Amino acid sequence: MKLADDATQGAEGAAAAPLSIDDVRAAAERLGERVRRTPALRCAALDELADAEIWLKAENLQHVGAFKARGALNALSRLDPALRARGVITYSSGNHAQAVAYAARAFGIPATIAMPIDAPKVKVAGVRALGAEIVFAGTTSDDRRKAALELAERTGAAIIEPFDHADTICGQGTATLELCAQVADATGGGGLDALVIPVGGGGLLAGACLVCEEEGIPVFTAEPANCDAFARSFEAGERVDVQPGPTIADGLKPVRIGALNWEIAARTVSGAFRVEDDELGLAMVRLLLAGKILVEPSGAAALAVALRRALPIQQAGASADVDDVEASADADADAEDSAGIEQVGAEEALSPEPGPARARRPRIGVLLSGGNVAPELVAELLSRYGGQV
Amino acid sequence: MKLADDATQGAEGAAAAPLSIDDVRAAAERLGERVRRTPALRCAALDELADAEIWLKAENLQHVGAFKARGALNALSRLDPALRARGVITYSSGNHAQAVAYAARAFGIPATIAMPIDAPKVKVAGVRALGAEIVFAGTTSDDRRKAALELAERTGAAIIEPFDHADTICGQGTATLELCAQVADATGGGGLDALVIPVGGGGLLAGACLVCEEEGIPVFTAEPANCDAFARSFEAGERVDVQPGPTIADGLKPVRIGALNWEIAARTVSGAFRVEDDELGLAMVRLLLAGKILVEPSGAAALAVALRRALPIQQAGASADVDDVEASADADADAEDSAGIEQVGAEEALSPEPGPARARRPRIGVLLSGGNVAPELVAELLSRYGGQV
Repeated sequence: MKLADDATQGAEGAAAAPLSIDDVRAAAERLGERVRRTPALRCAALDELADAEIWLKAENLQHVGAFKARGALNALSRLDPALRARGVITYSSGNHAQAVAYAARAFGIPATIAMPIDAPKVKVAGVRALGAEIVFAGTTSDDRRKAALELAERTGAAIIEPFDHADTICGQGTATLELCAQVADATGGGGLDALVIPVGGGGLLAGACLVCEEEGIPVFTAEPANCDAFARSFEAGERVDVQPGPTIADGLKPVRIGALNWEIAARTVSGAFRVEDDELGLAMVRLLLAGKILVEPSGAAALAVALRRALPIQQAGASADVDDVEASADADADAEDSAGIEQVGAEEALSPEPGPARARRPRIGVLLSGGNVAPELVAELLSRYGGQV
Repeated sequence: MKLADDATQGAEGAAAAPLSIDDVRAAAERLGERVRRTPALRCAALDELADAEIWLKAENLQHVGAFKARGALNALSRLDPALRARGVITYSSGNHAQAVAYAARAFGIPATIAMPIDAPKVKVAGVRALGAEIVFAGTTSDDRRKAALELAERTGAAIIEPFDHADTICGQGTATLELCAQVADATGGGGLDALVIPVGGGGLLAGACLVCEEEGIPVFTAEPANCDAFARSFEAGERVDVQPGPTIADGLKPVRIGALNWEIAARTVSGAFRVEDDELGLAMVRLLLAGKILVEPSGAAALAVALRRALPIQQAGASADVDDVEASADADADAEDSAGIEQVGAEEALSPEPGPARARRPRIGVLLSGGNVAPELVAELLSRYGGQV
């Protein structure tokens, strides 16, 4: 039952073999056509607001409307077929539940999801529509995990971890791998000067770090100010638990970042940012009205950070810690190195993108993590922020 | 001043040299990187509702948020540089105004737009933000055109026609050319079984027809029931004027389809459909909540038709005129011919897209024409239709 063990013990499984970009590349190879190569979108209005080239990786357009489909599909692909045939189990109140249900259906196997008794009707319906069975267990993450572990014990089915597992992390990392390739294709070999990632449990972040530490791209994080488990850990230099406070970013409310996720991110991240709900709501409405795409509040967190012009590479007056400054120096150097090669002038003559003729703006990758949101909330945020866009 | 004449006399200009897909290919070559290769998006929920493979050509993600940028950029590219240097003029109350302002800025020349005195503030602001000068002239399309013609007479600058001109038509046609290539790339050489196009003045439609008559793809049109200039003309066999009634599809309210546009569409279109505002609103909200993208009501018209399952190729009980039936037979034949080659079974094993294992569903191209809409309307439609999605 080695695989079953791996599937429930992320950190340990990875300690055996440290992860690298090669593991993410292998996941991309494995996933192939199972995941969508979501577009990398541009929006002139957002570029102006950020005074940067904003490259939006639109994972809200991924299967089930979130990047979570990547990790779930990769994890199921990695399971021993005999074990996989017993079905899979997970615990989640959000997008991971739908992602596992979706992946299980793609493989034609049963899935059981432990969800809180107070789970939003829309998410329960989404999971059921994908053919998964739901077991309701308490209201806390621990309640759900306990129920899932008991179920796994009884059935011998594998648990698909939401974020703290090598297969989940490498699957999520394929989104960043794609974005880097898309930027290179669109710019004639150019690269990102920075990447901003929203952080919940840290699966998307850890995957991005595996890619960016190889590519030399500074990674910055975005979290709700009320649920800043990563920022606090980043500042403390060790994993710190938090008591999540209220925020509209329901996808970014973990008690703590995953062990393996932290191990990877701690050595890679250049700076951690906290965003207020007002910034999330406004960024979400800007994406909707100017960018023409719908993200959930969590999905707008990375853009909210980029719009502050507070990244060290954005030459803003934001307080930057030592890591940021180093990251800034690196990014500026990269930008200068590539400026000549890119024939900025010629590009601008060809490209109708607005902006004064000058050395190109920094390229900031912004990961839009998902787009599953209640219509009432979208309508409310439009009424509140629509006039400011 | 030959080019200036051409620029104001579409039908005549084209009578001299009938247009074909080669002219659209030439426009695509000419435009190059000036336009965005907008993504062709898929959405499992919409596929289920339509019982078809819906391929969404997301021109709401085009520059200025609408396909109009293609025609405007192509028309400006075609102008004699000496003439173009005098600047360009157009008349519009909608997306074409922003498209011409955008194209003029891309070429570094001045643009003057004749707009109605009661033009929506948001559109006036959009045009000004792009650096164009605005001349307010009356409230009707004739008032605006008269003002534009007088200005052209005085300045010798070229008028960029909104839809009734060869260069505009060929520019808009590049959206369909791209979609066909994207479907072929994604399906290993497969093609569309049908394409649905929203119709205003007919620029987008005529461009699509030039591509589809060569590719053997049946073209269907979508119009507001209250503004059915094309459907009435299609049924009468000749251009018919209408008195546009109220509709939320403000982009589809012409008094008549263009002369050159009609000449091309009349010989190509397989069927014309009328949609009610309720269908437009619901289709727009489905695109937002399920598809995660924002379109204006006009932009949802083609999807509204596809969701009826009323296209002859969708085997629905809809009344189909003779053209439709012929189109249906052709489409079915194409589907059967390609089924074996495409190894549907293997594809479904690889693809997590939902749907029972069976001969593949018909592939329907749906042109999403634009995404410029007031936040208040989006909020209102979400409140009204959000519960039905």
